[in-house]
Amino acid sequence: MTKKIPAATVRRLPTYLRYLEEVGIGVGTIGSEEIAAATGGSAVQVRKDLSHLRYSGTRGVGYDIDLLARAIKKALGLDRTRRVALVGAGNLGTALAGYTGFAATGFDITAVYDKNPRRIGALISGMAVRNVEDLVADARIAPYEIGVIATPVGAAQAVADAMVEAKIGAILNFAGVTVKVPPEVVVRNVDLSTEFRILSYYLSR
Amino acid sequence: MTKKIPAATVRRLPTYLRYLEEVGIGVGTIGSEEIAAATGGSAVQVRKDLSHLRYSGTRGVGYDIDLLARAIKKALGLDRTRRVALVGAGNLGTALAGYTGFAATGFDITAVYDKNPRRIGALISGMAVRNVEDLVADARIAPYEIGVIATPVGAAQAVADAMVEAKIGAILNFAGVTVKVPPEVVVRNVDLSTEFRILSYYLSR
Repeated sequence: MTKKIPAATVRRLPTYLRYLEEVGIGVGTIGSEEIAAATGGSAVQVRKDLSHLRYSGTRGVGYDIDLLARAIKKALGLDRTRRVALVGAGNLGTALAGYTGFAATGFDITAVYDKNPRRIGALISGMAVRNVEDLVADARIAPYEIGVIATPVGAAQAVADAMVEAKIGAILNFAGVTVKVPPEVVVRNVDLSTEFRILSYYLSR
Repeated sequence: MTKKIPAATVRRLPTYLRYLEEVGIGVGTIGSEEIAAATGGSAVQVRKDLSHLRYSGTRGVGYDIDLLARAIKKALGLDRTRRVALVGAGNLGTALAGYTGFAATGFDITAVYDKNPRRIGALISGMAVRNVEDLVADARIAPYEIGVIATPVGAAQAVADAMVEAKIGAILNFAGVTVKVPPEVVVRNVDLSTEFRILSYYLSR
């Protein structure tokens, strides 16, 4: 990829892709209005977002669903499988490790780590939980591209540091606390309290 | 509240609030530059977002952290506790029910529901799992404001329908599939595959 896609568009493309997958790849064409209605945006914004792809649809006909899904996947780098290391084998980590949808979308949680001796060695979705102290050494043998932090608040920064040392380039952080990483590492924070707080605004009106 | 805040600002305000809470309420003043740096935006955008609040800071000094946090809470309707019903007592539901951070931010998961007879009656975070068939009747006795869908894909629409019947005004949907609700009900989809896909873009560059 050479052309940079705006961050806001990058955030919306997966939502469009998910809707295309729900409609069913290969069932014909779709218009920007339908995509907008299903994903909560405007048709103008959808068309502008999709203009960053190499596939531009046919005026008056719309987008071929199959070609559009492929173009989004290509733009997001979803044309291959990514190795994911998950740290935190509590309920959330177990839920994430057991979610088969990740594998279907090309994200392969290949190992689960924890620091609690009572969890280490336990089986989660067929994987024996490993000691988080082994993360860096494991990554030297078979690198991870994505790290998931599913630990309590207090452990998050130490885990992020270990992930950086393990040369993991992207982190999905569920810990609900900001972690500091070098600028070349991408972090996305999934903060569930934030989601509740956004909903609250619409309730209070 | 009378003035409408743009949706994009509503999505960012909780992130600012979380950062203020991390810095520590009551420790003096903070500038838009620091908030922007910590939350991944620009100082101009932060100032524009905060201009929708009733508290506007002091030019050349910045924002009093305590007053700013209170103004954001007020704008988002976070000045009282919301009753939350959670449906789906699997690993994800168990993780959500056990997350003490929700209660600290004013969201009280008061009941957990499931349709699986093997889960009904089991204790999760001190709550006996209830039959999802009781959701509507329960809500008549003590209404819920927010519903959380933490079920597999196949069950999500039926749960959303029950939540609408139970007069729940806002739904947080973790099922990874779009649910249809009447226009007066607000739905936020937390799609974990989408988060991975966004990260993927930054890895593939």
